[in-house]
Amino acid sequence: MRDIQSFAAGQWINPGAGSRSIASAITGEVIAQAGNDALDIQAMLAYAHDVGGPALRKLTFHDRAKMLKALAGYLKDHKQSLYDLSFDTGGTQSDHMIDVDGGIGTMQVYAAKGRRETPDDQVFLDGPPEQLGRAGQFMGRHICTPLQGVAVHINAFNFPVWGMLEKLAPTLLAGVPAIVKPATATCYVTEACFRLMIQSGILPDGAIQLVTGGLGDMLDHLECQDVVSFTGSAQTANKLRSNPALLERSVRFASEQDSLNASVLGSDAVPGTPEFDLFVKEVQREITAKAGQKCTAIRRIMVPQAHVDATIAAISARLAKVTIGDPRLETTKMGALVSQSQRRDVLKRAALIGAEAERVFGDPDTFAVEGADREKGAFVPPMLFHCADPDAAIRVHDTEAFGPVSTIMPYRDTAHSIELLNKGKGSLVASVITNDGDIARQMVMGAGAFHGRLYFNNRTSMAEATGHGAPLPHMVHGGPGRAGGGEELGGIRGVMHYLQRTAIQGSPDILTAIGKQWVPGATEISDRDHPFTRVFGDLDLGETFNSASRTITLEDIETFAHFTGDTFYAHMDEDAAKANPFFPGRVAHGYLLLSFAAGLFVQPDPGPVLANTGLDNLRFMAPVQAGDSIKVRLSVKAKTPRNDEYGEVRWHVTLANQDDAAVAEYELLTMNAY
Amino acid sequence: MRDIQSFAAGQWINPGAGSRSIASAITGEVIAQAGNDALDIQAMLAYAHDVGGPALRKLTFHDRAKMLKALAGYLKDHKQSLYDLSFDTGGTQSDHMIDVDGGIGTMQVYAAKGRRETPDDQVFLDGPPEQLGRAGQFMGRHICTPLQGVAVHINAFNFPVWGMLEKLAPTLLAGVPAIVKPATATCYVTEACFRLMIQSGILPDGAIQLVTGGLGDMLDHLECQDVVSFTGSAQTANKLRSNPALLERSVRFASEQDSLNASVLGSDAVPGTPEFDLFVKEVQREITAKAGQKCTAIRRIMVPQAHVDATIAAISARLAKVTIGDPRLETTKMGALVSQSQRRDVLKRAALIGAEAERVFGDPDTFAVEGADREKGAFVPPMLFHCADPDAAIRVHDTEAFGPVSTIMPYRDTAHSIELLNKGKGSLVASVITNDGDIARQMVMGAGAFHGRLYFNNRTSMAEATGHGAPLPHMVHGGPGRAGGGEELGGIRGVMHYLQRTAIQGSPDILTAIGKQWVPGATEISDRDHPFTRVFGDLDLGETFNSASRTITLEDIETFAHFTGDTFYAHMDEDAAKANPFFPGRVAHGYLLLSFAAGLFVQPDPGPVLANTGLDNLRFMAPVQAGDSIKVRLSVKAKTPRNDEYGEVRWHVTLANQDDAAVAEYELLTMNAY
Repeated sequence: MRDIQSFAAGQWINPGAGSRSIASAITGEVIAQAGNDALDIQAMLAYAHDVGGPALRKLTFHDRAKMLKALAGYLKDHKQSLYDLSFDTGGTQSDHMIDVDGGIGTMQVYAAKGRRETPDDQVFLDGPPEQLGRAGQFMGRHICTPLQGVAVHINAFNFPVWGMLEKLAPTLLAGVPAIVKPATATCYVTEACFRLMIQSGILPDGAIQLVTGGLGDMLDHLECQDVVSFTGSAQTANKLRSNPALLERSVRFASEQDSLNASVLGSDAVPGTPEFDLFVKEVQREITAKAGQKCTAIRRIMVPQAHVDATIAAISARLAKVTIGDPRLETTKMGALVSQSQRRDVLKRAALIGAEAERVFGDPDTFAVEGADREKGAFVPPMLFHCADPDAAIRVHDTEAFGPVSTIMPYRDTAHSIELLNKGKGSLVASVITNDGDIARQMVMGAGAFHGRLYFNNRTSMAEATGHGAPLPHMVHGGPGRAGGGEELGGIRGVMHYLQRTAIQGSPDILTAIGKQWVPGATEISDRDHPFTRVFGDLDLGETFNSASRTITLEDIETFAHFTGDTFYAHMDEDAAKANPFFPGRVAHGYLLLSFAAGLFVQPDPGPVLANTGLDNLRFMAPVQAGDSIKVRLSVKAKTPRNDEYGEVRWHVTLANQDDAAVAEYELLTMNAY
Repeated sequence: MRDIQSFAAGQWINPGAGSRSIASAITGEVIAQAGNDALDIQAMLAYAHDVGGPALRKLTFHDRAKMLKALAGYLKDHKQSLYDLSFDTGGTQSDHMIDVDGGIGTMQVYAAKGRRETPDDQVFLDGPPEQLGRAGQFMGRHICTPLQGVAVHINAFNFPVWGMLEKLAPTLLAGVPAIVKPATATCYVTEACFRLMIQSGILPDGAIQLVTGGLGDMLDHLECQDVVSFTGSAQTANKLRSNPALLERSVRFASEQDSLNASVLGSDAVPGTPEFDLFVKEVQREITAKAGQKCTAIRRIMVPQAHVDATIAAISARLAKVTIGDPRLETTKMGALVSQSQRRDVLKRAALIGAEAERVFGDPDTFAVEGADREKGAFVPPMLFHCADPDAAIRVHDTEAFGPVSTIMPYRDTAHSIELLNKGKGSLVASVITNDGDIARQMVMGAGAFHGRLYFNNRTSMAEATGHGAPLPHMVHGGPGRAGGGEELGGIRGVMHYLQRTAIQGSPDILTAIGKQWVPGATEISDRDHPFTRVFGDLDLGETFNSASRTITLEDIETFAHFTGDTFYAHMDEDAAKANPFFPGRVAHGYLLLSFAAGLFVQPDPGPVLANTGLDNLRFMAPVQAGDSIKVRLSVKAKTPRNDEYGEVRWHVTLANQDDAAVAEYELLTMNAY
């Protein structure tokens, strides 16, 4: 029997008084114990607050993204040890890969998005500045900074690795330390993964801690800068979120709960179409993967009335091929539930569903188990129910058997399928298998607000689609109502749950100093050499180049038109141009202005500016006619390091005419050598 | 005595059993009664769910924005009647303007932002698509749709008009019906404003309802699509958010609570600077405006140790000039608190503060009141306390006297001021008066996470600054911890609280059908006339023009360089270009490519395309050399109506070379006639 340790305030702590034993899902034998009532909860919180938090907050978002990348690499190199441990949870090798590789992949996506979508700074900018006064000397902007508390992650048993890593990735990227509390039933896998992270030496002290066993009274001690992020059953969630200390102190509580997720066969996806076959495959996979112990698994299957029988037959045929047994056997397609108590719970709930629906596949009393003892292990067969009257039924819409159990039900038309979907009162995900865009739009309008995710699949997307049940790091995971009302992942959206958004108001210079991004109206530094001659590291925000001016002639316009082929009448025909609501007569091409502007600011000789890589937010603001002149003002707006050789400079560019009126504004991107 | 009605399920309902009487803040006389225990709460919810919601959801975001604009216009025309009623709440004319004009202005900003920042459709797109598969045939995107429930707005007494309108504007723009429950003490003003909205006939039936008096058991009946948005005391908030039905069903609950907001005099802002005078003025105004009954009012004043005496003297001198009395008198600068019970509460809390701090200005037993009876009205004087040891003090950091009461305290250095700020354990707003960007940045890093808003002001911004206490519709309002953990306003951010974000996954065609925005990889319609010859209304998403190709010659590059003046070495000097990490040798100018591309797709003759107004997200992806050729693909990505004559078309543009490799990508904006 293994002792599963906790990691508290920098120390590994053995199980002690109050520890619980953990049994193998396959043999029923006790394999480990975890928990210690004497864990010093307050010392853990203090360690996170006083050691981990300050260390993480010193780093920039980019630094933390690099840390995640290194961590993911280290785990990848050691993942076999996690597979080996995982069979006793009841899962198969492909279940382990969802858990282990899925968790590592999530961390990698956060590492990549952190580099691309966050600044190399401690302050995250949320949206552009807002001009709040007429003259632009009082501006507003939203920024986000890390919460100065600790994130308490309370995880479910089904994905001991992914469950930890999918919460840690956004939390650490945000700069917030975490205390991880895995479900006891599978905490030996979590502990092994956690131990690898500590061994790697990549994270600063205090960044992560682990509680195996019970959390004690930790929640009672949380304060306004702390966050609780929970995954599990609605019942536990409700108990936790009702904690008076959390409520009184407005402690953030995010909850991701199992829900009555559904899949709809679109009315166009009749038997014989690629969509029908796809539907049958997805449904079968969602019922049996991880023996149905997925918070996103398909619990309700909605099929046009006419195709119910064909669908039952097709799904049953696939289910019949699913070999159940010891997951260490390569032939095993579905392992066991996590524990005997989970098995009892699933059978009890299946019986509730059975009161409203007929079981059309799978009998828990007679099914074959390969290579293991059917009674000692927590085995159940896949079970398919058929509910003929889903409008009258109640239990099939609110009873989740957290195992390989699903109910098929008929619908009349798309509106009816939406009605049935929404009877789940909020869920993590619904899938719709359809090749019809109008059905998709109708589903979104009718059922979108009840779902955290809507997964559409058809003949076009099926080769690349990632599956109904797979939460991707790019997409939000969570849902309203029964699904808990929380949100995780979704790229940088998931990081926001660990940041505080703050509205900042002040002068342009103050906003520039805070956000490390030059705000129009802030000081322009124009007494230095041309900024294109200065290396990345030397450039300050606000360094500005004011060009000479150039007069635009009618000949310029004619030349440009014939050279480029752009002979649009507004450039060529005075009368026709005058008839256009935007122009006073013939005007210069917008691209002529851009090109001449470049001529006015570019430095011909080799220097730190290596290339113009792009341009954003160009707006033409006033027409320029022959005889007008233009000049350019170009200021350093932001700097982002890219690699060891160069970084990106974002320039705020204004083209003005002879009256100092702006005629165009844009942001120019260049790569500049260090 | 006036009967204040409720408006339930389309009917005006008189006060009845359980009604409460309302007294004038000035004379103490009963002026109105409100409340009816027999209100049919469930009928109100059903009316919102079944009538108001569907009507609002049929409209696009733009339709709803126009509705808000019309509503604001109607209220503006009738605002005098609201001023007239408001004096009995104790407020002065300038207090009424904050309330009435502030509320109408908020609605106007939401109307404008709705037109500019939301689509003319029912689906709001949240971020760009994400490519989830290698070939781009399975994509993800986040969208937001209106919650299909009702928003219950529970408002505070201090701003009976603004409090209603600032919540209604984002709610209605989101497409969600609302039930407004104002605080009883000032509900006669809210009712009058609400009545104007009904009279205007602008809103669809069921969009808004009103409960004056108690809410009954309404919260017990809310479901997963409903939202509660509360403003008021922490105590009431805690009671409401602990409602078991809300917790069990994950009903969204946003809370904006009074907090211990502070203002810091920056260490640079010594007496004699413009900042010092500004600070004194802001503090005095925040203490006395609305007699201190503002959730954002300055409760704690932090000043460098050396300047405490000077600051007390300067603030006291200004407070001494504040005439207290009947707010109907033009000479009155500060009116009364809202009620006698509020007065008792403020005096009780001031006494608590008095145990830790010395009162240095204002004596509630001896102060002059002009034109009213000091005892019959709910008058108190402004009171300034001085807490010499704020590190040891507890009450000054957690006791909010919701009246003209504030405590000045010394700090040693900026880090110490941050420590004191954060002793408020979360607040709506802190202000920092400083002309030093480094101090501003330090404040944000240290105190940002504890505050919903940080207001900086100095000599540059003071002419335009809107005041420490003013929540603007552009900026989020709310804060962590003691401030309730909620968020309101902040432009479109405030609308999100009434929308459900849903992750959508599917093929590019499915995403296009859902979001009404063409997604790369979706069907290209290329068998019609050139899309530049087709009017706005006829253009379909995905209509595509494939241009002929054009070969770029060295002469083109030379000509362009000398014509524009852009003789950057990468275009002119083979050896120098080769030494650059981005280029294989001399390359064409990026602007040459853009210009030639225009030449390849522009239609010379007058037609539906009126002008090229801008360009977004241009990225140069591969170099183009002499001998290469380019061609353009241009697809309709999105359409946005602008006025009665034309709308904006956003085109997805790809420039490819002779090998079909993309060399540049961007979005082009044109204005197109209907």
